Amino acid sequence: MVSTGERPSARGSGDVADLVGRARTGDARAVARLISLVEDASPLLREVMAALVPHTGHAQIVGVTGSPGVGKSTCTSALVTALRTAGKRVGVLAVDPSSPFSGGALLGDRIRMQDHALDDDVFIRSMATRGQLGGLAWSTPQALRVLDAAGCDVVIVETVGVGQSEIEIASLADTTLVLVAPGMGDGIQAAKAGILEIGDIYLVNKADREGADNVRRDLRAMLTPAERADDGWQPPVLKTVASSGEGMDEVAGALARHASWLETSGVLTTRRTRRARAEVEALAVTALRERWGDVGGRSELDDLAAAVAAGETDPYAASDRLLESFAD
Amino acid sequence: MVSTGERPSARGSGDVADLVGRARTGDARAVARLISLVEDASPLLREVMAALVPHTGHAQIVGVTGSPGVGKSTCTSALVTALRTAGKRVGVLAVDPSSPFSGGALLGDRIRMQDHALDDDVFIRSMATRGQLGGLAWSTPQALRVLDAAGCDVVIVETVGVGQSEIEIASLADTTLVLVAPGMGDGIQAAKAGILEIGDIYLVNKADREGADNVRRDLRAMLTPAERADDGWQPPVLKTVASSGEGMDEVAGALARHASWLETSGVLTTRRTRRARAEVEALAVTALRERWGDVGGRSELDDLAAAVAAGETDPYAASDRLLESFAD
Repeated sequence: MVSTGERPSARGSGDVADLVGRARTGDARAVARLISLVEDASPLLREVMAALVPHTGHAQIVGVTGSPGVGKSTCTSALVTALRTAGKRVGVLAVDPSSPFSGGALLGDRIRMQDHALDDDVFIRSMATRGQLGGLAWSTPQALRVLDAAGCDVVIVETVGVGQSEIEIASLADTTLVLVAPGMGDGIQAAKAGILEIGDIYLVNKADREGADNVRRDLRAMLTPAERADDGWQPPVLKTVASSGEGMDEVAGALARHASWLETSGVLTTRRTRRARAEVEALAVTALRERWGDVGGRSELDDLAAAVAAGETDPYAASDRLLESFAD
Repeated sequence: MVSTGERPSARGSGDVADLVGRARTGDARAVARLISLVEDASPLLREVMAALVPHTGHAQIVGVTGSPGVGKSTCTSALVTALRTAGKRVGVLAVDPSSPFSGGALLGDRIRMQDHALDDDVFIRSMATRGQLGGLAWSTPQALRVLDAAGCDVVIVETVGVGQSEIEIASLADTTLVLVAPGMGDGIQAAKAGILEIGDIYLVNKADREGADNVRRDLRAMLTPAERADDGWQPPVLKTVASSGEGMDEVAGALARHASWLETSGVLTTRRTRRARAEVEALAVTALRERWGDVGGRSELDDLAAAVAAGETDPYAASDRLLESFAD
């Protein structure tokens, strides 16, 4: 799987320090290798993260979400162009939680991003989670940390598909961009889909289609403070045509305004602490699962599971005993 | 949310004992209420599961999986008909992990199932997981336990959509049915999708379409012992037209043969222990998350997360400290 040319393993502290040092100067190969270490759940990650943490906190993490077909990838690409015009260094992380078997992200998205392939100040990476339950919870913040330390001003996290990932992105991002499009559901459906609570900026994409103004009006009417945690930020609803780049400069401007607001309001610290909380919790759970997995061959968990399967004990009592044995 | 008529809360031991007693006689309302307790993560579940465990182990848990559009719901419904003809009591659990916002399963599936709505020996239930990460891991085994204790001979677990859920279903079921259809991808794509490892019985559904024989031949060629854990079971590949019921009696027969093989080979115990293991582990993780969530208002996890967000410590060191504090 690991070809020597592309993804050499970093074997010791010297290698890690070297990799981290080169990533901080914006070396694309070093950045790619560090994110590969995250994907592979490398034992070196502990050392890598400790080395990266002091050099993070600069990047604005922007989540992009919306139903399939709404134009997420096109919009991400157009936003990269707008941010580059504004002189920003940009990272893109495309996360595909629905691909446990193939272990890879969708080719189409990669192709769309090739407009930016030759730009040294754009880092683009697809990441898969290898089917590990909850794997996204710790691997996404770690990959974001790599891109942050590499000097990105903005990192866009794009999720493929819908579902649980939308909640996750909302809890990971500093700023959440929600895309809607005319003809893909009226306002009431938007309300049902839960998007009214999670967005900081709304884009009515494909705004050259009929009905865009209605969608915008409905969204604006629904995005009243009463519907949301009244934190003092009124989410703008912008019209865009991502395929032609129309409206993307306004989006870049709204991102900058939201970044300032995050800082002055103190919400930035709240959101970043929440992101770190999810990461630390996921790491602790993963460590516990490993401990339960093999303690001297056959673990206590295996014995407890056999007793539950045989009807000799109930699952809650087994869970209690598992946690007690850990506290010993 | 809870209307008095449909989902009264069971408030104490007497109520639980009564509910469990009635569920064991096959009382549909009692079964529905117990599964609602599972969905709501009721504090009574501990007591409910302890009361149910001694009365379980009879039902054959059958997972149904396959790509969208392959006919999972139609096939589930047709299989219910075939199993009822064979005199079996049948449960159906439709799990929708992709619906964290709506909290409900797809209406279409419910409608398809209404053919069986008036049959006292068929229990049909949709279950949503309320967006809780890993919630499916403990709630599905618990709902299955309810249907098992209610005297079902076969319980069909149907997942909506693809992705992680396919892996989960394979680790939950006694018998996994994998559906494919002509024109939805050739054999090589099947291999890529990882379905060659997880199925115990394969259905080439929509077999009245062109290409069904080719799909069957390709699948058979690929399902050689070399491709699979050589446990002595050669998965049959059956042609079905679920919409007309064609071939479903053969599927019911294959299910019965697999049930016998599971028992005599000892694989049944292995699979049920694996299912119990996932359940116990998920309960333990959930209990830990709750403990980390609020210990005296502000938890140690919150302090550690704030330190990580501020760049004062790294996430692995924070995870270590979290686990150490638990062991104190």
